[in-house]
Amino acid sequence: MNNSYRDAGVLAPVVTPFDKDLRPDAGRLVRHCRWLLSNDVGLAVFGTNSEANSLSTGEKLELLGALIDAGLPAARMMPGTGCCALPDSVELTRAAVGYGCMGVLMLPPFYYKNVSDEGLYRNYAEIIDRVADSRLRIYLYHIPPIAQVPITLTLIERLLRDFPGTIAGVKDSSGDWSNTRAMLEQFQPHGFDVFAGSERFLLDTVRHGGAGCISATANVNPAPIAHLAKTWRTEDADQQQSALNEIRGVFEGYVMIPGLKSAIAHFASDESWVRVRPPLVEMPKARREELIGALTDKRFEMIDIASDQQGVPN
Amino acid sequence: MNNSYRDAGVLAPVVTPFDKDLRPDAGRLVRHCRWLLSNDVGLAVFGTNSEANSLSTGEKLELLGALIDAGLPAARMMPGTGCCALPDSVELTRAAVGYGCMGVLMLPPFYYKNVSDEGLYRNYAEIIDRVADSRLRIYLYHIPPIAQVPITLTLIERLLRDFPGTIAGVKDSSGDWSNTRAMLEQFQPHGFDVFAGSERFLLDTVRHGGAGCISATANVNPAPIAHLAKTWRTEDADQQQSALNEIRGVFEGYVMIPGLKSAIAHFASDESWVRVRPPLVEMPKARREELIGALTDKRFEMIDIASDQQGVPN
Repeated sequence: MNNSYRDAGVLAPVVTPFDKDLRPDAGRLVRHCRWLLSNDVGLAVFGTNSEANSLSTGEKLELLGALIDAGLPAARMMPGTGCCALPDSVELTRAAVGYGCMGVLMLPPFYYKNVSDEGLYRNYAEIIDRVADSRLRIYLYHIPPIAQVPITLTLIERLLRDFPGTIAGVKDSSGDWSNTRAMLEQFQPHGFDVFAGSERFLLDTVRHGGAGCISATANVNPAPIAHLAKTWRTEDADQQQSALNEIRGVFEGYVMIPGLKSAIAHFASDESWVRVRPPLVEMPKARREELIGALTDKRFEMIDIASDQQGVPN
Repeated sequence: MNNSYRDAGVLAPVVTPFDKDLRPDAGRLVRHCRWLLSNDVGLAVFGTNSEANSLSTGEKLELLGALIDAGLPAARMMPGTGCCALPDSVELTRAAVGYGCMGVLMLPPFYYKNVSDEGLYRNYAEIIDRVADSRLRIYLYHIPPIAQVPITLTLIERLLRDFPGTIAGVKDSSGDWSNTRAMLEQFQPHGFDVFAGSERFLLDTVRHGGAGCISATANVNPAPIAHLAKTWRTEDADQQQSALNEIRGVFEGYVMIPGLKSAIAHFASDESWVRVRPPLVEMPKARREELIGALTDKRFEMIDIASDQQGVPN
């Protein structure tokens, strides 16, 4: 098994900046990734919160290439590569493996609903077969509230049995602790790494032997989340968890992606960060001020993000 | 307004054949399209029942090119071009308009859920703006059971007001007649063409001024459906509708796409038609025999389909 996640117990589904024509802004993405890494958070680029499903396969390939060209470490990257269409999943996964990424985070194909475990099994099996590279590490992405296509325990069991070196773990974004616990109990002992989909479950997850979390709010609150992942055996762990939950709670009062981008725009003094692609809508000015006010009340800050963003043309 | 649909009151979301490596089989697709046209049914290629969301944008562009190269009339084509990612929707739509297609059938971006009408409006507005071609005719694709992202009456009203020559109609696959009727009452008088998503609602739709239907089962039962669309004012219309419902009812007892493909495989004596891409699974042999038995009991047949398929390598 590849244990490189041990250096990366916390990853962020990195938000994707757009220029004024709504094209992905590779320069700003590289800078934000650098800031996350400097705060001990790994790069789950092309996740749900990256608006990855509003990006074409070509755009994702270009952005991944830009991150690599900028010298960011592939060993800290877990790009999302699961698409509706098999050839897209294969192309993205192949590229990620070729760059030496620590793994890929793979959604099931999510257009057709009420599909069988057999059909989902075949999707993953076919991708593994076509990529045909022993370096491939797949983290399954279970996010039923959005994908509406779940990855069941039965499916994991079968995949793990048939592809033991390749099926490396899961991100559980069900928000259902009993499901995460079941994954931890059944699969983590077999070298299958369970990441919670939110830092709300970070302490519970690591206490049950899990690998950490991959969380939207790691985009804005990386250091404190990574700190808990490293120090969860210390006495103040529960206190740390409560502090994380408070900040998370503020963001949960807003639509997540525009909220994250609004916070970055504010703390980096870089208005261009507020842009989102349709079907999302940027946060109205008044709501943004409300969010920043609520964060300021909690003494929330994003240390050094402004200086990291300096000199980027708007 | 472009009234070319008047010659095409019934369209099929054309099922997509795959070769043994699960690549789209352009030769078989062309032949099936020819058979549908010879039965008076237009070509809504790349619909839900086409497994379009299991095809990459590149594969769809290639298939559309192959249909055009084979001499099939673009004026009878309404390809599905709505994707999750804006650049994909723009690229496919631009190609369809360039070929002179009668229109495009456009899903909303369907990954992110609970998005606002404002966000969906911006998606369509941005596509219209980027395609920038006065020949563009968009048929909105409302299929909440699968896309899980609805196209509301409020959204249609706003789009129709702002893009009156371009927003040409809707396919309503809600299965909710009260919604179809509301669309017919509010928008059809303004030159907005309402297609039912199933021939079950064909007679009701045309009696309320609608344009026809775009239906999965038009892939297998095209002539009788097209006949009702042409003769709905005749005395036997209700009887025709009942007969259509009986055949539709048989297919509704099975998973639709594998069922349609199994019927084609049987009546065209061409086993390769049973293939589907993951996450779908082909129908087990016993279920296929059951389906064919049920169809035979109803004296169902697919006239001339076998001879049309002759000489296609497997």
